[in-house]
Amino acid sequence: MDMSKIREKLAEAGQAHLLQFWGELSEAQQTELYLQLQSMDFQELNSFFQNAMKVSGHIKEEKIDEKMEPVPREALGSVTRDRDMLKGWEEEGLLHISQNKVAVLLLAGGQGTRLGVSYPKGIYDVGLPSHKTLFQIQAERILKLERLAEERHKVKSTIPWYIMASGRTMESSKEFFAQRNYFGLKKENVVFFQQGMLPAMDFNGKLILEEKGKLSMAPDGNGGLYRALGTQKIVDNMESRGIKYIHVYCVDNILVKVADPTFIGFCVKKGADCGAKVVEKTNPIEPVGVICKVDGKYQVVEYSEISLATAEKRSSDGRLMFSAGNIANHFFTLSFLKDVVQIHEPQLQHHVAQKKIQHVDSQGQLIKPDKPNGIKMEKFVFDIFQFAKTFVVYEALREDEFSPLKNADSQDGKDNPTTARHALMSLHHRWVLTAGGHFVDENGTKIPAIPSSRNGPSGTVTPDLNQNLKDVTDLPIKCEISPLVSYAGEGLEKMVSGQVFFSPLVIDETSIHQLVKNGL
Amino acid sequence: MDMSKIREKLAEAGQAHLLQFWGELSEAQQTELYLQLQSMDFQELNSFFQNAMKVSGHIKEEKIDEKMEPVPREALGSVTRDRDMLKGWEEEGLLHISQNKVAVLLLAGGQGTRLGVSYPKGIYDVGLPSHKTLFQIQAERILKLERLAEERHKVKSTIPWYIMASGRTMESSKEFFAQRNYFGLKKENVVFFQQGMLPAMDFNGKLILEEKGKLSMAPDGNGGLYRALGTQKIVDNMESRGIKYIHVYCVDNILVKVADPTFIGFCVKKGADCGAKVVEKTNPIEPVGVICKVDGKYQVVEYSEISLATAEKRSSDGRLMFSAGNIANHFFTLSFLKDVVQIHEPQLQHHVAQKKIQHVDSQGQLIKPDKPNGIKMEKFVFDIFQFAKTFVVYEALREDEFSPLKNADSQDGKDNPTTARHALMSLHHRWVLTAGGHFVDENGTKIPAIPSSRNGPSGTVTPDLNQNLKDVTDLPIKCEISPLVSYAGEGLEKMVSGQVFFSPLVIDETSIHQLVKNGL
Repeated sequence: MDMSKIREKLAEAGQAHLLQFWGELSEAQQTELYLQLQSMDFQELNSFFQNAMKVSGHIKEEKIDEKMEPVPREALGSVTRDRDMLKGWEEEGLLHISQNKVAVLLLAGGQGTRLGVSYPKGIYDVGLPSHKTLFQIQAERILKLERLAEERHKVKSTIPWYIMASGRTMESSKEFFAQRNYFGLKKENVVFFQQGMLPAMDFNGKLILEEKGKLSMAPDGNGGLYRALGTQKIVDNMESRGIKYIHVYCVDNILVKVADPTFIGFCVKKGADCGAKVVEKTNPIEPVGVICKVDGKYQVVEYSEISLATAEKRSSDGRLMFSAGNIANHFFTLSFLKDVVQIHEPQLQHHVAQKKIQHVDSQGQLIKPDKPNGIKMEKFVFDIFQFAKTFVVYEALREDEFSPLKNADSQDGKDNPTTARHALMSLHHRWVLTAGGHFVDENGTKIPAIPSSRNGPSGTVTPDLNQNLKDVTDLPIKCEISPLVSYAGEGLEKMVSGQVFFSPLVIDETSIHQLVKNGL
Repeated sequence: MDMSKIREKLAEAGQAHLLQFWGELSEAQQTELYLQLQSMDFQELNSFFQNAMKVSGHIKEEKIDEKMEPVPREALGSVTRDRDMLKGWEEEGLLHISQNKVAVLLLAGGQGTRLGVSYPKGIYDVGLPSHKTLFQIQAERILKLERLAEERHKVKSTIPWYIMASGRTMESSKEFFAQRNYFGLKKENVVFFQQGMLPAMDFNGKLILEEKGKLSMAPDGNGGLYRALGTQKIVDNMESRGIKYIHVYCVDNILVKVADPTFIGFCVKKGADCGAKVVEKTNPIEPVGVICKVDGKYQVVEYSEISLATAEKRSSDGRLMFSAGNIANHFFTLSFLKDVVQIHEPQLQHHVAQKKIQHVDSQGQLIKPDKPNGIKMEKFVFDIFQFAKTFVVYEALREDEFSPLKNADSQDGKDNPTTARHALMSLHHRWVLTAGGHFVDENGTKIPAIPSSRNGPSGTVTPDLNQNLKDVTDLPIKCEISPLVSYAGEGLEKMVSGQVFFSPLVIDETSIHQLVKNGL
């Protein structure tokens, strides 16, 4: 170990304090710390810090509101306003999938900390009848989509799956996939790669020691993707496979339409190099970032950056002017990603997040702060929208496509395992109804399409005879359809049309799991 | 007590079983039962039952979907789509209020059973800084509106308040008002009247004994209003006061704009005899009744009556075709109400709700059934829409005007004391921001207009420096403004413009309760 060189590097960068406990460390600890320090470019880290602080101060000064422009109608595709286009977009998407030009990229660097687990979110079981994990649901959607493309175009289709994990989630995720034989996907088509880490710093840019011999490190944000795409040679891998279009999404959305052919088809037909799927923001104070133009360039404006007056602005049709709610669900062409990796990403500043960071003080005491004492530096996946030549936005229905898993059930009833489970079962219930099936309760009484709830609007009562029976049943209807049976509700008629079902109903490849009566 | 006559009546009506335990009753019990029975018209009750069962069977047969038409644009007023009209409508409403032509009518017959309390909902304290009850909040809005009308038109204005209570809520409600001096209103302008009761019946139309000497009775639904308006001479009372327009609403909506001049002005300018305030239904499977036309007549179609295909229908603008979500908030002209009371109401059938009804069986055993064993008959306040000559719909913003208190906090996080409290404080927070004030946290850092939340959209992170600080604060900002200071956000500039506040902020007539620093 050449310590003198390290000491020099640290001194120059004003980070010499990192070695203050060197003498107290065991050899093993010394080696570990040496390797950590040796791999770091402290000058680069210092410049990251200076630029990030500049930007984050900057954001708080300027009134971004006055520069915001909404997404123009011509750049927008909407499942509710362009219904006659959807079939054509889907056809286009399926064609490119059948030609093996489409890949999916999963952002899975985060642990389920808020969820209250120490393992990757993708391994979480939200309590569906099948007990499938988020990873398995997404894998099976990819499989099904490959099959749909094959059926449609009579050629073998492959959708490679790139999974960005972090130091914290890589091993357990890989292991989980291996144990389960990649859920039926080919091992070589599931490509894991590693997200970068950055050291935490105090407000003066000093790196923080988590232990006497260990720096405090954190993933560099989902925007770390672009650096990793280069360093991990993922762009080259895509190129070698002939990939042209990439669908990027987050692991925690149980409803995510992986490689959604309609979304991809829309983006391709629009000639876009970059696209975002959004859900409509309908309440001005909903805490969601919105996609808009600022100084003529697309970006996400976070809810914390926007004034109430701007959030409440409405178009003549009464809709919120800034309603394109970002859900971290994006389309990129490979050529765009290549430019980003080579040219744009290195110029991007990090965002700063104040955090409470556990550390050892100068006396070597372990401190667990109760208010923020330092920062983590992150880039965001949407930081590169500004570089798009042709940017498009695709508006999907929240109830069909977005239900993120973020919190434990104990927390305020939002974005937790129960809401995720209910969102999926409610969607599958609607698929069955649309395909001509319906449900009856234990007395054989037909259950309404909209399951009743204790929370009807003020003063209204339901005259329906089922009302009070339904009050005691678990809502929504328990209904789960394997992605291997249907990707988005298609192909169910032959199985359910005219059929009568009890809840729970589970449909997988092998069979329809439950009592079925005809007629009624 | 002339029992032979009663026995005869009962025998003729097939209700003789009501006396089966007569011999076992104490004199007091006998007297009580005698009075109960003697006041009843059993032939009428039987016809109610037959007609109600016919209708409720009927509803389940016919496909109501095919007959449904949306509210035409010309009958719709919208706070988001008709913004340039709002001021004029408000002026119109204030004028009629200043001329003492406007009354409000509160539906307060329900107990807080689901809320987990045995007293009237109006007495419930949702835990605001002021600990005001729903009754007090509504009373103070009436007071403030009277003052606004006076200021505007320089005449003394009175808005009489008619409160329909039920046997279960009458005494405690009256007492509460008396103890608190009617919250500053004149006693003679607060008129309580009694909602009717109906006996519960089994599925064969036999009245049910709750105890050996006591019939099982229940209020006859919020539509019982119309019968009570006649029997309790409320219509006459209104007439004698020169009332022309009545705003009817439910006690449980903490955001209700009592006698909302904008809504009333809109209805009057449209020449409507009947109007409904609604909020937009944005999710097809949201359990809310929608106002629409059926066979050319307006009615509420309950969510349990509608098929998924109809619920999902959309207009060319992408909105749900049936989006007028009923919130039991209505406008009537007195002349319309008179016709309803005299002509239409008697012809209305009751709706049937299956219930689990505690009763004594033929052996005199007390039975607590675990599935529905009988029915309650109800009418709904919206049953009379069909009789309107000119019906209009006014679409308001949910976040500004609708947050009902229905469940206890333990229940699924919907429509409970916490959501009601947060809805009110969030609205008042927005009032302060709109009036030019803002909030800072304990470090003096400006708090964003949209308070952060642990539940941002999938994969998005907030670059704002406050983010992590705000995570630990109680959301929303604690802010309460007395209705006596502002009815709907007006008149706050002079108090808050340019001011900086900490949470909690409470503004009442006497002062602004909290530390205030200028500038910053």
